[in-house]
Amino acid sequence: MHGEPGGVLGGLGPAATVHYLRRVVEMTDAERDQDHVELLVWQRGSVPDRTAFLRGEGESPEDALVAHVVDLERAGATFVAIPCNTAVVWVEQMRAAVDIEVLDTVDETVAEAIRLVPGLRRLGLLATDGTISAGTYARSAERAGVELVLPDDDVQREVMSVIYDGVKAGRPVPRERFDALVAHLKDKGAQGVALGCTELSVLHGEQGVDDPTVVDSIDSAARATVLRSGRPLRRS
Amino acid sequence: MHGEPGGVLGGLGPAATVHYLRRVVEMTDAERDQDHVELLVWQRGSVPDRTAFLRGEGESPEDALVAHVVDLERAGATFVAIPCNTAVVWVEQMRAAVDIEVLDTVDETVAEAIRLVPGLRRLGLLATDGTISAGTYARSAERAGVELVLPDDDVQREVMSVIYDGVKAGRPVPRERFDALVAHLKDKGAQGVALGCTELSVLHGEQGVDDPTVVDSIDSAARATVLRSGRPLRRS
Repeated sequence: MHGEPGGVLGGLGPAATVHYLRRVVEMTDAERDQDHVELLVWQRGSVPDRTAFLRGEGESPEDALVAHVVDLERAGATFVAIPCNTAVVWVEQMRAAVDIEVLDTVDETVAEAIRLVPGLRRLGLLATDGTISAGTYARSAERAGVELVLPDDDVQREVMSVIYDGVKAGRPVPRERFDALVAHLKDKGAQGVALGCTELSVLHGEQGVDDPTVVDSIDSAARATVLRSGRPLRRS
Repeated sequence: MHGEPGGVLGGLGPAATVHYLRRVVEMTDAERDQDHVELLVWQRGSVPDRTAFLRGEGESPEDALVAHVVDLERAGATFVAIPCNTAVVWVEQMRAAVDIEVLDTVDETVAEAIRLVPGLRRLGLLATDGTISAGTYARSAERAGVELVLPDDDVQREVMSVIYDGVKAGRPVPRERFDALVAHLKDKGAQGVALGCTELSVLHGEQGVDDPTVVDSIDSAARATVLRSGRPLRRS
């Protein structure tokens, strides 16, 4: 294991990377420093804004993302994890540029939902308008044979308000608002709910949500990282 | 700035590295991802236990620490920060092995104390028995012309209890216990107090201590990282 680190496409954004790293450390069944996952984390904020580009503003991040994964491979990474939901839009371009495995955070999240919710056929998604319109979750769910359930338009506006006016603005979000979003998707037939947005992962962690049918994308990326590194998971 | 990342000697231990990274992100005056410090963080837990070696048990970490900093330089790091108080014992061996700057966390902490406490002549230290006996703080203070003030033996036992039975064991430590340690050193004539132990940094952050004469070593390393990267500090 020594000297064969996993790579982390960090900085997208920087705080999300820190949250992901904390979850990797917490999820690893380690008694001492030497038991932990070895990682090469490139905290690179300079990649052009992904969401802005998907909205039709600004330059494409594609070249920078490909260069990022190539730099991780050159530095010695044996695989790459992406603690970001939006960058996954360019995962095939990244994969084409390197010989190492690039984990798809969206696929890992859908797979985790299937693992945690027996007989899962309908999966709800809480994410930004940008992630929904990028279609990564829809394609991943389709490949897995699962139907994706999206919030009604008025509830999607509430999702955006929780993310932008709440978490991103540093304002506390009452647990009830989060629970109402999950309940709405379950009312629409979702058996599990994926959190496909870093801000929702942070909120989910802070509020100590222990509903096993709520599946966190950053937790899924962290779990995949620990397993891919050959380390045991801590029993939660 | 792009493509010229600072390097981080991570994994000593892994949770301390996460805490340091969070502080770097928080301390950077950034409006967007692109404003953040670019860092290459090698989260490497496999370095032999530093404290055990200093106690006379187990193999020396020197070769592994030197290899770690050499790997960071090869991967493209333009300087190296060390979010750990103990590894600083080997900073000269690391510096001799690379052409890039290796920041000394202990020197940064003493310099930060001098900056924050006008006319500082006596600096208290809260740290493990191992860090105290390694002598890094004593040598750094002497070079800076500052006298180091250590707790009395019974209070040092209380410091070790706060670190090992409290923070490391995951048990809450009342604010009063922390404040009493600082007050003891001030009673002994210290005008400022350095926190030379990661567990005390975590406790200090959790408790929101706002005494500017209490100087946190991980915060000092994070601050030095932001400045060395040429980024502006957020006004706190």
